[in-house]
Amino acid sequence: MTRHAVIAGAGLAGSLAAGYLARRGYSVRVFERRGDPRAAGAGEGRSINLGLSARGMRALAAAGLLDDVLARSVPMRGRVVHHPDGTTAFQPYGVAAHQILYSVLRRDLNALLVDAAETRHGVTFHFGHRLDRIDRDAPAVRVVDAATGAATEVAADLVVGADGAFSAVREQLQHGRRADLHREFLDWGYKELTIPAGADGRPRVRLDALHVWPGQAAMMVAHPNVDGSLTCTLFAPFEGEPSLATLDTPAAVRGFVRRYFPDAEALMPRLVEEFFDHPVGQLTTVRTAPWRHAGKVVLVGDACHAVYPFYGQGMNSAFEDCLVLDECLGAYPYDASRALAEYERRRRPHTDVLADLSVRNFVELRDRVHRPAYAAKAAADRMLNRLAPRAWTPLYTMVAHTTVPYADALARARRQDRILRCSAALAAAGAAIGSYAALRRRPGRR
Amino acid sequence: MTRHAVIAGAGLAGSLAAGYLARRGYSVRVFERRGDPRAAGAGEGRSINLGLSARGMRALAAAGLLDDVLARSVPMRGRVVHHPDGTTAFQPYGVAAHQILYSVLRRDLNALLVDAAETRHGVTFHFGHRLDRIDRDAPAVRVVDAATGAATEVAADLVVGADGAFSAVREQLQHGRRADLHREFLDWGYKELTIPAGADGRPRVRLDALHVWPGQAAMMVAHPNVDGSLTCTLFAPFEGEPSLATLDTPAAVRGFVRRYFPDAEALMPRLVEEFFDHPVGQLTTVRTAPWRHAGKVVLVGDACHAVYPFYGQGMNSAFEDCLVLDECLGAYPYDASRALAEYERRRRPHTDVLADLSVRNFVELRDRVHRPAYAAKAAADRMLNRLAPRAWTPLYTMVAHTTVPYADALARARRQDRILRCSAALAAAGAAIGSYAALRRRPGRR
Repeated sequence: MTRHAVIAGAGLAGSLAAGYLARRGYSVRVFERRGDPRAAGAGEGRSINLGLSARGMRALAAAGLLDDVLARSVPMRGRVVHHPDGTTAFQPYGVAAHQILYSVLRRDLNALLVDAAETRHGVTFHFGHRLDRIDRDAPAVRVVDAATGAATEVAADLVVGADGAFSAVREQLQHGRRADLHREFLDWGYKELTIPAGADGRPRVRLDALHVWPGQAAMMVAHPNVDGSLTCTLFAPFEGEPSLATLDTPAAVRGFVRRYFPDAEALMPRLVEEFFDHPVGQLTTVRTAPWRHAGKVVLVGDACHAVYPFYGQGMNSAFEDCLVLDECLGAYPYDASRALAEYERRRRPHTDVLADLSVRNFVELRDRVHRPAYAAKAAADRMLNRLAPRAWTPLYTMVAHTTVPYADALARARRQDRILRCSAALAAAGAAIGSYAALRRRPGRR
Repeated sequence: MTRHAVIAGAGLAGSLAAGYLARRGYSVRVFERRGDPRAAGAGEGRSINLGLSARGMRALAAAGLLDDVLARSVPMRGRVVHHPDGTTAFQPYGVAAHQILYSVLRRDLNALLVDAAETRHGVTFHFGHRLDRIDRDAPAVRVVDAATGAATEVAADLVVGADGAFSAVREQLQHGRRADLHREFLDWGYKELTIPAGADGRPRVRLDALHVWPGQAAMMVAHPNVDGSLTCTLFAPFEGEPSLATLDTPAAVRGFVRRYFPDAEALMPRLVEEFFDHPVGQLTTVRTAPWRHAGKVVLVGDACHAVYPFYGQGMNSAFEDCLVLDECLGAYPYDASRALAEYERRRRPHTDVLADLSVRNFVELRDRVHRPAYAAKAAADRMLNRLAPRAWTPLYTMVAHTTVPYADALARARRQDRILRCSAALAAAGAAIGSYAALRRRPGRR
């Protein structure tokens, strides 16, 4: 007997989950409030580019999609830090050759995932359909066609909420239950901007890296695109001086960029138009529990753990959810309740840690990247990693270039930090003992 | 021109706010989903009794209602702690005669507040009416009469959300905005039970105190009632062994009470019936921001800061909200936007601290009340307070018996704790120096 799944949301997590579920024999209907991501102009002007890293790659490989995705992406071998004085410094991501991230446009990747899922037997996508009600016990959903207003009841065996940080599935799943929800917004927003390719069609900056302009008043990152352009995301406080609220004239925008990202102004010929054309994006963190109801309703991606983009792990962790959910459904094929419980048990502690790490990385990018202590710690980390790559792996490397679960990575990084501090303390103590011994041996006491 | 206010919720905060707003010249319509609290049997079986303390009393006094309320309440001069071995100990609340709490039944108090508000010109209550939609910009609400299904649009100048921890007003006020929401549930629930008056009509335990059975596996509190009975609230984990989940037979319930509250079994002749008749209550903490929209929509009480009941401050802080909101509306009579901003500024930092204190007091009641260190600290606090009542006030005293804002009370308590610790350290250092001096003077070295 065919089992039926309904997925709310045809974003990255929803469309990848559709393919996985189809492979497990589910007939899958995906409902998405927005239009088809394959249509022209979809999602433009408000989407941080994505850096695909080890976790996301593993999940795409398991779905047989990795090669297709890599063909549309640009490898990033490290980070170019742009300093306020206009100088730049290249920091490789890791010491090993495979420690590479891949930059991909959200809409390209989304279109690819929808295409791939649609080729599977029994998968249909319904764009422009809003979820109106979810009966978590049936389970069943009522969807409304935005164009006609017609409502349809759809029964299923499994409902997957891949409907983002403001998930309607989560709302219904948790309604009236002892459900924890922690949702907070960063007081910084963002604008998408572009560094187009030069007039000669060649990139204006090196294309094999993520570009970062850290800073306390504002920061910017730029991801390379296959056409030689880069998509920039400018982050700044919503309010205060200077802030997104005060950047209300072309002169203000130009002056701001000139002051905080002096080398970037010349790279962005359409800066002012784009700044005023594009909406301001918001950044939110969501931690919540439970993620599931019996064996019937389950959440993936931002719906259960939205994170700030500063660790580049939002998509990667959402893909990892899909993979782990698939593994759990495979492990308990006749006990969906147990499968979903196991999925939440395996994922939630780790994505909660990821949320913390992503907040921390915002603070680090804003306040610490320029400081000597940060550089010293990073250098020590890199040196130890080079000397003993198995025994010593910096936290960033574990998060971005391995699939060690997030909480385990953090625990290991803390152990390493303690060792580093103890070594420093031992060295200091050794020096002190040495001085004391020298004092005791001073001539007058002999 | 008369200004119109709509209040969502006719609970304690909503009905007190109705009176305040009427006094400021508003015409007030209060909509409440549930039935009239003055009807027979309203709200039975799931309401922790309330301990009225200084903050609540000040707000009631300002509304001219304090005497009426005190006439229906029972003074509590301290806490009777019931130990697991069946012994009891009385701890007075404070050293001053006015340091008294007043126990009052929620439904009695609610009925009194509704009655009092209704006598004011322009106040109407509409029970059995559900808020269906809120237009925060108009502002206006759509209410549905639960009995007939008829919907009415009601326009207003000010909408007050006094609709509890799951506030619909909050939802609409914050929808699509950068609103922080932290909501979590305690993994313990509660059952309401009764210690009836004895056959001779006299109380079975002393009536001028709050009775507390602390404990790690379960705890219980009992508030006195004017009829000589006490309303008990038994708190226990939802799951595990033992827990509310495993108390599924009369024998299990009796065995549980006998084991953890040995002296209480004989006091509760209807224990088993009540245990199975009454629903399990849940306990939730809500921290959120913002509390307001322009000068149009504002939240009070649980809607903006639900707290656990373990500090006895839920109602008191809600009443304080109403008083501060009234003061702010009075201070800026022609600028509601500024009034609401000022209200949030004055209240939110303090209620966030109260949420923390209430969590802490749960842990304290559960884990520490029995420990010698706790008793020693409490004794030191009491002694110093007796010696220097102005300079030294224990945290509990400041929270319950003064109207010092919560965050200020906490800051002062921390300073006091530092002094206490420093004094102990100085004393220890003094003793050490003394020993060292004694050593130096020992005969062999002379």
